[in-house]
Amino acid sequence: MSASSINLAVIPGDGIGPEVIAEAVKVLEKAVAAEGVTLEQTHYKLGAQHWLETGETLPDEVLADLCTRDAILFGAVGAAPGDTRIPSGIIEREMLLKLRFSLDHFVNLRPSRLYGTVGSPLADPGTIDFIVVREGTEGPYVGNGGTLRGGTPHEVATEVSLNTAHGVERVVRDAFRRASERPRKHVTLVHKHNVLVFAGHLWKRTVEAVAQEFPDVTHDYLHIDAATIFMVTDPSRFDVIVTDNLFGDILTDLAAAVTGGIGLAASGNINMDRTAPSMFEPVHGSAPDIAGQQKADPTAAILSAVLLLDHLGYTTAARKIEAAVVADVENRDGKPRSTAAIGDAIAAAL
Amino acid sequence: MSASSINLAVIPGDGIGPEVIAEAVKVLEKAVAAEGVTLEQTHYKLGAQHWLETGETLPDEVLADLCTRDAILFGAVGAAPGDTRIPSGIIEREMLLKLRFSLDHFVNLRPSRLYGTVGSPLADPGTIDFIVVREGTEGPYVGNGGTLRGGTPHEVATEVSLNTAHGVERVVRDAFRRASERPRKHVTLVHKHNVLVFAGHLWKRTVEAVAQEFPDVTHDYLHIDAATIFMVTDPSRFDVIVTDNLFGDILTDLAAAVTGGIGLAASGNINMDRTAPSMFEPVHGSAPDIAGQQKADPTAAILSAVLLLDHLGYTTAARKIEAAVVADVENRDGKPRSTAAIGDAIAAAL
Ligand SMILES: CC(C)[C@H](C(=O)O)[C@@H](O)C(=O)O
Ligand SMILES: CC(C)[C@H](C(=O)O)[C@@H](O)C(=O)O
Repeated sequence: MSASSINLAVIPGDGIGPEVIAEAVKVLEKAVAAEGVTLEQTHYKLGAQHWLETGETLPDEVLADLCTRDAILFGAVGAAPGDTRIPSGIIEREMLLKLRFSLDHFVNLRPSRLYGTVGSPLADPGTIDFIVVREGTEGPYVGNGGTLRGGTPHEVATEVSLNTAHGVERVVRDAFRRASERPRKHVTLVHKHNVLVFAGHLWKRTVEAVAQEFPDVTHDYLHIDAATIFMVTDPSRFDVIVTDNLFGDILTDLAAAVTGGIGLAASGNINMDRTAPSMFEPVHGSAPDIAGQQKADPTAAILSAVLLLDHLGYTTAARKIEAAVVADVENRDGKPRSTAAIGDAIAAAL
Repeated sequence: MSASSINLAVIPGDGIGPEVIAEAVKVLEKAVAAEGVTLEQTHYKLGAQHWLETGETLPDEVLADLCTRDAILFGAVGAAPGDTRIPSGIIEREMLLKLRFSLDHFVNLRPSRLYGTVGSPLADPGTIDFIVVREGTEGPYVGNGGTLRGGTPHEVATEVSLNTAHGVERVVRDAFRRASERPRKHVTLVHKHNVLVFAGHLWKRTVEAVAQEFPDVTHDYLHIDAATIFMVTDPSRFDVIVTDNLFGDILTDLAAAVTGGIGLAASGNINMDRTAPSMFEPVHGSAPDIAGQQKADPTAAILSAVLLLDHLGYTTAARKIEAAVVADVENRDGKPRSTAAIGDAIAAAL
């Protein structure tokens, strides 16, 4: 990365991916241009459609090429539900999760914020402004498990959650560091240590140890089941949540729902050690039912571009886009606008 | 079990357990007496307090004795948070989960229903009336896992989820059978088969196979993350949810929250093969902060007694209690009542 150009990999993907990414790129380009920075884009054809055409998920050469970029902007991947030509989960695991694991995206950062007028399903949501720091490279997502006597009445299927001191400590430290820079300075560990003792105690002990390094940050603990209750009864209580890969997956979809829907939820798959490019993607999926119709909300993709700029250090441009998004979202009147119209409005407001 | 008496084991437990159980027993006794049935009670001292006094969690003799009863009514167990005298999770695993596993409680039945005036945190909850059939004897709850190089920077902690055709099939069949007796006749499988491939595919294949036996029952599938979204945006869509032990734990707490709180959520740990007594317990915990103050709502415990009566075949008494509870809950005006006052009101309305 040079100060005057960003070497960006773009993976539009399937369904609404290309539409929302087009708007994110539009906004990104304009915001950095104002800072004298150019956006060099390399587009990659990957996803379910690409798999149908070529049988490729994520070839090693493509992965190597992606590693030469400063960052990756990712749309969404996934076939239409019920498309039986694509083995279930293959794109998710051999492409999306392969990217997260190969590029060591150990911080899966997912901010949740309720904007003024945007409809939360909660009657009395209060002020919601927290971030989830989800572990991104281990836990039950490692793909470790197997099937014995598959398809027989004696079948046994296992799933192994792998958790390491290395993996847990780096993400817990990241969460405390982020908390120390926020006004409330509070970390909540979410796990289920009364049942998942081995992994749970590693997480608990790590939080206790890392907390010593951050004397101004307070912390507490919630079981995942209790955390989902608070997410709908008192989401204001959260500041920074740190949790494992699977609990983070569940909590962030729920958090997106209570803050007005996944049309607004951004995420970053971040390699904080910068040994490989980080990847920024809306939390939503490819929504094949509305693909190609200009019905998708590009806001989540645009907010993901904000996280990308923050990660690369272009904070002025990031704050400008963020302000434009907030203004747009807070002034929505419920009238439908096309994907491009929303992107244009945000770009114009920069 | 004779037709004219129920041989009931009562485990009041810790915190608010004894208070809510006293009311459940009061209501239960009156309801069955009207049918000419007597309630023979055997009380067991178990839980965190008992562990502090004796070091016992669940001795084998006690387990054997419990097996001679028709059913178990269970309050809640658990020490005050921060009571460091009790190793974390020991009561949960060596007592509560030991009961569920030893007595083969493979159907963890958790109904969710929103009663007229009871406050859901949702702005527009709609009609909510579904049941969760949570698997109760396997999955990530088996306690299989370990720690390598604990406490060092090279620590590895594992948790193994064990899933068997036997275990999955019996609970899926139970869910379809329950669905076939409900007006909407719909089963939703909740899992995460795009990531947890081995276990997820066992669940999916089993649902497809069992569905053949129930041609009048429809079914669909949701990933756990999407299921939490629908739980707050469209809970009316659910009729019968079947899911694994951990996803069921999470979903039922969330479901309790959206239907007015865990003060109302009942559960049954059911051995449908009747090779051991089933156990009925409120979903809530021991709430040590309000224990002994007559502040707890006994409704969840009383509704758990309804599930107990249904399981033992006393459906007339079950329906009477249920009607009394619904009348009580729907007429609440927000004025606080003591635990006993609520129990008395429901008993009087029988
Ligand atoms: C598509 C799927 C593998 C993915 C996940 O589970 O992480 C998605 O749900 C997400 O949250 O980004
Ligand atoms: C106390 C705990 C072990 C238990 C569980 O996780 O099953 C509880 O949360 C429940 O849902 O009954």
